[in-house]
Amino acid sequence: MSEILVVGSLAYDSIETPSGKVERALGGSANYFSLAASLFSKVRVVGVVGEDYDQNHYDLLHARGVDLAGLSRVEGKTFHWAGSYEGDLNEAKTLKTELNVFEHFNPNLPEHFKDSSFVFLANIAPELQLQVLEQVKEPKFVGMDTMNFWISIKKDKLIEVLKKVNLVLINEGEAKMLTGAENAISAAPMITEMGPDAVVIKRGEYGFALYTKAEGFFILPAMPIPKVIDPTGAGDTFAGGFFGYLAAQKTIPTISSLKHACIMGSIMASHTIQDFSVTALSKVTMSDVEVRLAGYRKVIAL
Amino acid sequence: MSEILVVGSLAYDSIETPSGKVERALGGSANYFSLAASLFSKVRVVGVVGEDYDQNHYDLLHARGVDLAGLSRVEGKTFHWAGSYEGDLNEAKTLKTELNVFEHFNPNLPEHFKDSSFVFLANIAPELQLQVLEQVKEPKFVGMDTMNFWISIKKDKLIEVLKKVNLVLINEGEAKMLTGAENAISAAPMITEMGPDAVVIKRGEYGFALYTKAEGFFILPAMPIPKVIDPTGAGDTFAGGFFGYLAAQKTIPTISSLKHACIMGSIMASHTIQDFSVTALSKVTMSDVEVRLAGYRKVIAL
Repeated sequence: MSEILVVGSLAYDSIETPSGKVERALGGSANYFSLAASLFSKVRVVGVVGEDYDQNHYDLLHARGVDLAGLSRVEGKTFHWAGSYEGDLNEAKTLKTELNVFEHFNPNLPEHFKDSSFVFLANIAPELQLQVLEQVKEPKFVGMDTMNFWISIKKDKLIEVLKKVNLVLINEGEAKMLTGAENAISAAPMITEMGPDAVVIKRGEYGFALYTKAEGFFILPAMPIPKVIDPTGAGDTFAGGFFGYLAAQKTIPTISSLKHACIMGSIMASHTIQDFSVTALSKVTMSDVEVRLAGYRKVIAL
Repeated sequence: MSEILVVGSLAYDSIETPSGKVERALGGSANYFSLAASLFSKVRVVGVVGEDYDQNHYDLLHARGVDLAGLSRVEGKTFHWAGSYEGDLNEAKTLKTELNVFEHFNPNLPEHFKDSSFVFLANIAPELQLQVLEQVKEPKFVGMDTMNFWISIKKDKLIEVLKKVNLVLINEGEAKMLTGAENAISAAPMITEMGPDAVVIKRGEYGFALYTKAEGFFILPAMPIPKVIDPTGAGDTFAGGFFGYLAAQKTIPTISSLKHACIMGSIMASHTIQDFSVTALSKVTMSDVEVRLAGYRKVIAL
């Protein structure tokens, strides 16, 4: 089993959905990612929190064996995002983004993090993603995410990162925005032409499309969930399940393991959306995963 | 092999999409359905056209062995629909609906149509769907489609039809509208509670979700198509491929044949969207279907 290094946000989120609302609940890409990935593999987190960050939220990751040596606590407040979802829950409307301590974040890797085999650059500024890559020695497999904000204002830097990664995980709207393509199917090969060998386009309630230069498309639906409470963190959870699964394999990623990793990402994300914040995700056990995986296999079985 | 009776529209469509436009091109649910279904099974059409209906358009179905004895030609003009699609092509904006000869349509079945084993009630007024059902003797399997217009203004009649059919094919937006559900996953079991044993929710570029009372969900993606020219008729083509496949089987529909029928529907629809009107669909051969089916199996194969 190999270690996964993740760099991303640790945040407090205030969220409103048709099912209710929460104030300053635990969030952030690194939290969702780590909780999902740590079910399968060892995880190392790089990030920053403020003085208001709750001890219980350190403990939550610590109890899952996550190495927090790269987590710095600095003066000021933790990153805060407020958003709301309406109707079909497919898109969040951002109400407030308070970067706080994240504004001056400079990811510095503890020495023992530098030999990590798997690296996931969650959705942070492309310069910071590059800064992390410069510090790791010889990663076997690097993945990244991004978002509309960076595509609009930092596209050149983003394209530099794309050249240095093996895989991109990106949502459908952002894949179209990045490439100018009309749909996910035409966007995927345009993304791999930018550098990575593989791209996973996350399609929310519709599942995912994996595209590899070598083998083309692998597309499957999401686990059917009748009642979605809060979709926040689903994409980061997908990435966590995906990397957690990959890093737990004995070989370096193959087409076959990438496919299974997508399914594991999907299964993990299907838990996250069943409650606010990390409430459902943090309770998931390996046996829950196996039960849901069996259900999923039935849904797609001919 | 059993005969399929279809009742629906034969129309001329004026359509604009980001790829171009066509004026008064052949359309209508019965045309798309028949062209798709006739690749697999014998089809009998019930419908009405006006004096302007082109002989070539009779010939097109006739050449595919479709029985046109139930097609009446009356004074006046053929049903005309004008619509446009923008951006992601997921929704048509209706610009004009001229019912013309369709306004006084009363489906009367030729005697030899009454013993049809398979019946598909395409998207027409629920009263007309009932009128057809009253005339068929002992169909083995009846399916129906509908649309937002009938859900808004004829919901009671529609619910009467739902009680008399084995299966509903419906698009995702309409499934939510019919049930008030938030998503397709919660809508599906609500629809089967209204009567049918099975429902297929058509999700456009995202594929389909089959739900049966007996076995729950079967969900798969659509065939990936990088360039969609015109999505008009995709749903009716899906229904045609679906029924064509089912009626060609030796047994009455089973869960397994319903699943394969969904895939065949999907494969047929993936051709329709590659050109305007029935241009691509009318050229599809069995060998094209086999090639695409092999490609599709690869896309979903673990």
